[in-house]
Amino acid sequence: MLGILTDLYELTMAAGYVQAGKTDEIATFELFIRHLPRRRNFVIAAGLQQAVEYLLELSFTREEIAYLRSLPQFARAPEEFFELLARLRFTGDLWAVPEGTPVFPGEPVLTVRAPLVQAQIVETYLLSTVAYQTMVATKAARIVQTAAGRAVVEFGTRRAHSPQAGVLAARAAYIGGCIGTSNTLAGMKFGIPVYGTAAHSWVQSFADELEAFRELQKLLGPATIYLIDTYDTLEGARKAASLGRPLWGVRLDSGDLLALSRQVRAILDEAGLHEARIMASGDLNEYKIGELVRAQAPIDAFGVGTELATSADAPVLGAVYKLVELERAGQRRYTAKLSEDKATLPGAKQVYRFADHDLVACAEEPPPPGGEPLLRPVIRAGRLLEALPDATSARAYAAQALVRLPEGVRKLEQPEPYRVEYSQALLALAEQVRRRPAPTLARDPVHQKKETP
Amino acid sequence: MLGILTDLYELTMAAGYVQAGKTDEIATFELFIRHLPRRRNFVIAAGLQQAVEYLLELSFTREEIAYLRSLPQFARAPEEFFELLARLRFTGDLWAVPEGTPVFPGEPVLTVRAPLVQAQIVETYLLSTVAYQTMVATKAARIVQTAAGRAVVEFGTRRAHSPQAGVLAARAAYIGGCIGTSNTLAGMKFGIPVYGTAAHSWVQSFADELEAFRELQKLLGPATIYLIDTYDTLEGARKAASLGRPLWGVRLDSGDLLALSRQVRAILDEAGLHEARIMASGDLNEYKIGELVRAQAPIDAFGVGTELATSADAPVLGAVYKLVELERAGQRRYTAKLSEDKATLPGAKQVYRFADHDLVACAEEPPPPGGEPLLRPVIRAGRLLEALPDATSARAYAAQALVRLPEGVRKLEQPEPYRVEYSQALLALAEQVRRRPAPTLARDPVHQKKETP
Repeated sequence: MLGILTDLYELTMAAGYVQAGKTDEIATFELFIRHLPRRRNFVIAAGLQQAVEYLLELSFTREEIAYLRSLPQFARAPEEFFELLARLRFTGDLWAVPEGTPVFPGEPVLTVRAPLVQAQIVETYLLSTVAYQTMVATKAARIVQTAAGRAVVEFGTRRAHSPQAGVLAARAAYIGGCIGTSNTLAGMKFGIPVYGTAAHSWVQSFADELEAFRELQKLLGPATIYLIDTYDTLEGARKAASLGRPLWGVRLDSGDLLALSRQVRAILDEAGLHEARIMASGDLNEYKIGELVRAQAPIDAFGVGTELATSADAPVLGAVYKLVELERAGQRRYTAKLSEDKATLPGAKQVYRFADHDLVACAEEPPPPGGEPLLRPVIRAGRLLEALPDATSARAYAAQALVRLPEGVRKLEQPEPYRVEYSQALLALAEQVRRRPAPTLARDPVHQKKETP
Repeated sequence: MLGILTDLYELTMAAGYVQAGKTDEIATFELFIRHLPRRRNFVIAAGLQQAVEYLLELSFTREEIAYLRSLPQFARAPEEFFELLARLRFTGDLWAVPEGTPVFPGEPVLTVRAPLVQAQIVETYLLSTVAYQTMVATKAARIVQTAAGRAVVEFGTRRAHSPQAGVLAARAAYIGGCIGTSNTLAGMKFGIPVYGTAAHSWVQSFADELEAFRELQKLLGPATIYLIDTYDTLEGARKAASLGRPLWGVRLDSGDLLALSRQVRAILDEAGLHEARIMASGDLNEYKIGELVRAQAPIDAFGVGTELATSADAPVLGAVYKLVELERAGQRRYTAKLSEDKATLPGAKQVYRFADHDLVACAEEPPPPGGEPLLRPVIRAGRLLEALPDATSARAYAAQALVRLPEGVRKLEQPEPYRVEYSQALLALAEQVRRRPAPTLARDPVHQKKETP
C-alpha cells in the first residue's frame, strides 16, 4: 500500500540500485523550495504529519508487485528487487522543521536519510503532500493577516483539486491561521473547529424564504447564520431581522459586499440586533478582503474557499527533493546537480534562525552561537521519536513564528527580502563538488558527519 | 465512510430537512460550469467514474455519526436525522455526459435526482472530483493539440495538490489525450500506460555518469532514456551516444530546449543513432511546447508535470451544483437562484448537440430533430445501469468528440465562441420562476416530467 503511489522512475531506479549492488548505500535527500512563488516572501511549512504517516505505513502489496512484474520496464529487473519490495518498510531517519515554521528557498523542510532504495521511492508522495499543504498554509497566513483580526473560515473543499486535497487544505489553512473549516472530515480527523449552516438550496427548497429562515433558527439557535442573497439580499436581511433572536448573524455571498454589508448592518441595527454579525463569502482572497477592511466594511467574518484551497494566484510551489549525500561502508560522498538553471548545494544541512536572518550550514558544523536550529529529528531508524504536535499546536506555533519574523518581511505588499546566508564550510563543500562533480566515495575528515542531518 | 467528506452545511441542511418533514421530497440538482476559465473555450468532462464510485459507496459509520452528535450545530437536531444517516445509501438517479465530452458553460455535466437529504449531502464531493478532473483533461487536450502529433506524457504527481490529486490528474490527462503517465498507481488502477526511467539522483548516485548510463541500459534495454543534464548536457549526450544500442533515447530537463535539442540531435545522428529519440521536460506547457514545435525543435516527446496536474494558468474551475426542481407527492416545483451575479435556470435539462451548436432544453421537451442528447442515464434507483467506459475508451471518445467540434472553436489562440442556445420552453420556465420566485408546490402540466433529467 502507498508505495505504489509514486512515479514509475522511482521504482525503475530502485530496481537499478539493486541491480548495481547499491542496496547497502545510505542516501540523504533534502526536500526544499527552490524559488518562492510569485507574491510570496516566505512559505509556512505544513504537511509533516501526513509525510510521517506515509513513511510509517510504506509498503507494497503482492498485487502491486505483480503489477510491476507485468510492466516492460521491469522485464530485466533482478528477482532480488521484487523480494526487497515485498518486505520493504521505511527504516531510515527523518528530520524536519516543525509544521508552522516559516521557511525560505533553499532551506530543507525535510531531510530523509535512509537506504537509497527507500529514500528514492518516497520522493513523489512526500513532495505532493508537503508542497500542497505548505502552499495552502502560506496562502491562509496571507488572508488571515489581511483580515486584521476578523475571523477567516476555510470553505474550499468543492474547489480543491480532489476530495483529499480538500481535507488537507482544511488542515493547512487552519495551521496558517484560519479559525476553522467547512470540511467535516477534517474536523473529525484533525480536531479542527467546523463551521457551516445553510446554502442557497436550503432557501430554495422551501416555498417561502421566511419559512426557510424560521426552520434554520429552530435547528441552529444561536449558531444560526442566514444566507440572505438567494433572491434579494436586502429583502432577505429584513426577513432575517424580523425573526429576532437567537441568531449568530447573516451571510452575504454575492453582489457588492461593501455596499450590501453597510445596508444590511443598518437593517440589523434598526431591528435592535446590534450583536448580530455579518459574514461575507464568494470568491474572496487577500486582495478583496484588504479592500473591504480598508473601507471599514462592517463584516465580522470571511468565508474563503476557492482561492485558498487552490492557492489560486500561485497554485504551484516548486518543491524539490535532492540527493545531497551517499554513504557506503563508512565512506561518504557529497552530491549536487550542476545543471545551469537548477543547480543544488551538496551535503546534509541544518538551518539556524536568528532574529533577522537565517544561516544554512553543513549539518555537522558546530552550531553558531545564538542561532535556533530549525530541523529536528522526527523518525529514527523507522520509529517515530514522539507524537507530532497536532494541528492546533502547529497553528499556535505558526502564529508565534510569524510574529518573530522582521515586520518588513511579513508585509503583503512590497515586502523586504529576508536574508539567508550560507556558511563558509557549506560554500567550500559546494565548490569542492563543483570541481569534482562525481568523485569516488572517499572519507572526508572535514565533513565527517556526527548525526543527520 | 465518505459521507462525512462534505461541507458541514450539507449535513446541517440535511438535519434541517428532516426537522422540516422534507424527507419525502425528491430533489433534482445539476452540476455545471458557470463560466469558462480564462484561456479556455470549452472543457472536457471527466471524473464521472469517481463520482459514481462515491455515490455507490456513500455511507456514514457509527464513529462519524458520534462525531456529528458531539458538534454544537446538531444539539437540536432530531434523533430521526442520526437514524437516517446510519442507514443512508444513495437510492437516487444519476444522469451524466460521458467522460471525454466537450461541454460549455451552463450545460449540466451531471444531474442528480434523489431524496433531498441525499442529493444535498453529495454536493461537495461530486464538485471536487468532477471539477478537478475536468480541469486537467481540458488542460491536457490543449497541450496535446499543441504538441501536434508528438507524444505527451503526464509527469505531475509531485506538484499535484495532494497525492490523490496526482492519481486523478494522471487519469484525467490520459482522457484528455496524453499517451500515459508517470503515476504508477494510476497505471495499475486505471490501465493507463506508465512511463519513467531515471532522475538526476540516479546519475548522482554513481561516481561516474557513464557508469550510471551503462547500468540503466542494462536494466531498461530498448526502453532506456538517459537523463543527460545532471552535469553538462552535451557531455551527457556524448556519453549516451557512446553506449550505442539498445536505447529509446535521451531526456532534456533544463536549459534552452530548442538549442540543446538541435545539438543533441546532431550528436546522436553523428553516432549513427538516427532512431534514438529526444524527450523534453521541465516546466513545459502548451505555450512553450507551441514555440518549440513552431521552431521545429527535434523533440519527439514531451513530459509535462506541474502545469498539467495543477492546470497552472487556470487552476480553478467554477463548477456549481444547483437545485433546479423539487417533487413531493407527485407535485413539482421549479427553483432557481436569482442573485444578480449568480442566477441559475430552473428545471431539469437536457443538452442536444448539433454540428455547430448546442441546445439546452427542458428534459421533458420532445427532442429536437438531429440533436444528439448528451446526458445519459448512469445510475437508476441507486443501481449502476452498466459499467462505465474505462479511461482508454473515454480517451478515444474525447478525441472523436473534439474533432467533431467546429475547427474555429478548437483553436488555442483567439478561438471562435461556440453557440449554446436555450429552448423557448426553458426560457419561459425561467421567466415564470423569476416572476414567482418561491411558488408553492403545484402540478404543472406543461412541464410534467416523463423521465429525469
